[in-house]
Amino acid sequence: MSERTSTAQAPAVASAPTRRVRQGPVMPIGGAEKKGGDGDETILTRFLELAGGSSARIAVIPTASEEAAEAGERYVKVFSKLGAADVEWLRVEQRPDANEEEALRLLREATGIFITGGAQATLVALLAGTETMEMIRLRNAEGVVVAGTSAGASILSAHLMSGENFLPENSNDAAPRKGMVHLVAGFGLLQDVIVDQHFSQRGRLGRLMAAFAANPGLLGIGLDEDTAVLITNEGMLEVLGSGVVTVVDGRNSISDYYEREVGEVLTVVNSHLFMLGPGRRFDLDSRQPIGIGEGQA
Amino acid sequence: MSERTSTAQAPAVASAPTRRVRQGPVMPIGGAEKKGGDGDETILTRFLELAGGSSARIAVIPTASEEAAEAGERYVKVFSKLGAADVEWLRVEQRPDANEEEALRLLREATGIFITGGAQATLVALLAGTETMEMIRLRNAEGVVVAGTSAGASILSAHLMSGENFLPENSNDAAPRKGMVHLVAGFGLLQDVIVDQHFSQRGRLGRLMAAFAANPGLLGIGLDEDTAVLITNEGMLEVLGSGVVTVVDGRNSISDYYEREVGEVLTVVNSHLFMLGPGRRFDLDSRQPIGIGEGQA
Repeated sequence: MSERTSTAQAPAVASAPTRRVRQGPVMPIGGAEKKGGDGDETILTRFLELAGGSSARIAVIPTASEEAAEAGERYVKVFSKLGAADVEWLRVEQRPDANEEEALRLLREATGIFITGGAQATLVALLAGTETMEMIRLRNAEGVVVAGTSAGASILSAHLMSGENFLPENSNDAAPRKGMVHLVAGFGLLQDVIVDQHFSQRGRLGRLMAAFAANPGLLGIGLDEDTAVLITNEGMLEVLGSGVVTVVDGRNSISDYYEREVGEVLTVVNSHLFMLGPGRRFDLDSRQPIGIGEGQA
Repeated sequence: MSERTSTAQAPAVASAPTRRVRQGPVMPIGGAEKKGGDGDETILTRFLELAGGSSARIAVIPTASEEAAEAGERYVKVFSKLGAADVEWLRVEQRPDANEEEALRLLREATGIFITGGAQATLVALLAGTETMEMIRLRNAEGVVVAGTSAGASILSAHLMSGENFLPENSNDAAPRKGMVHLVAGFGLLQDVIVDQHFSQRGRLGRLMAAFAANPGLLGIGLDEDTAVLITNEGMLEVLGSGVVTVVDGRNSISDYYEREVGEVLTVVNSHLFMLGPGRRFDLDSRQPIGIGEGQA
């Protein structure tokens, strides 16, 4: 790996008009990925391979977890058992910690960066806009794989959903409602997509459509548990794990977002729906699946 | 209402090439519809209006419920409180009961028929193919409104989903898998659609897509709780209640159903997705929403 020691501000990935040629893979995971060591931990194994296999140096970011030390140690064990050369976790208890050399050193030396699940708000509050975030961007731009699970998956994109508690009283919380979710700025390793996790398990299609109605330019990616997408710098998405990935393309969608009041149920029609099983690939540029139904949408 | 007393076999609605001119409305409800009497029971009120309002004679079919008498009495109270002239419930404890004159008389005199929720399998086992079913078809063909909630909603269609327990070990139960669900013959009041309920609440998009992959000619209708669709003999669907209706059109869908083994996750691409809020209408023939995004799918 690179021995660069500069902590210079990373290029603003979010505003780059074209993808960075060297950008490393980005891997959002839907939560509850298998960690057992009995051969079914395909997602974490793939991550480790991309990080260099037995010579991998993994930096775990457990900041989202209420018990960060516990979560950090847990993944240290998991990745060590899977054969990583070195695994360490980042201690960020307060926002200033995320600008400390200790945190930056870990990331600078890492060949793979893994962000755990927990409270998305904590992740945003402690990391967004810090040197840690800039270093994650820089390392990814240099080719290092970055994965995140659950809350850690959402934060990878330029936009993530927030405010799921903002719901009218007596609402049916599954329906898409105006104002139900808001967009928050994430790390920006992915553009033009919005990622949700525990997708089928928590009935989140409505929530995704609510974000989507207000932001039809985004591609919605719903990740089930133990399911991930590997996204390359060429915009190719590949499904990993045991479940299904739900992709909603709103290029032709029409909604009544601007006619509805906050709290009212939204109508969103003419979206394209893709449910992709393990191993399936999807071209994010053309918004077409590969190897099945190509050019027929 | 008609005073016909003949119990002659109803016309085979399922095989009719065109819709019956006089067919009454059919109203599948997604379960947990409001019954409170505090003005939010819009679905049941609409049903009652269609059944004749204050002169309505409602037949309640609580056969799906484990405690049928209790469920029956409950709806008797609800509809009486809402102003129905007469409400009675049908006692069918064993299959032969469904061929008895007592049951048929109730249905023959009804101006509205309401099927409660519970175990779908019980509903199929005790009613499918009986004189009771034939009488429900006949009365609907004569113009009487038929509603059903939860399991009672699924049974209204020609096809309903069964076998949700048939899942491979360690499966992510939210993903669509080959063989996850099977089709069972329902009452046949609706054609070419498959209805699922508690849709967002129980994360059932995967289940619907599994049925759908094997039967791409069907239109999938996912009903959220306290949400219903009113379907007229002209094929117009209207959304009632507080939630959202998810319509999946597979006219252009492509799946890998025939390449997958039983238990494997399915991929289904290029489906059209419509999320319809309260009051929205959808034309089942053209498979287009009305008043929003028409002709643009």
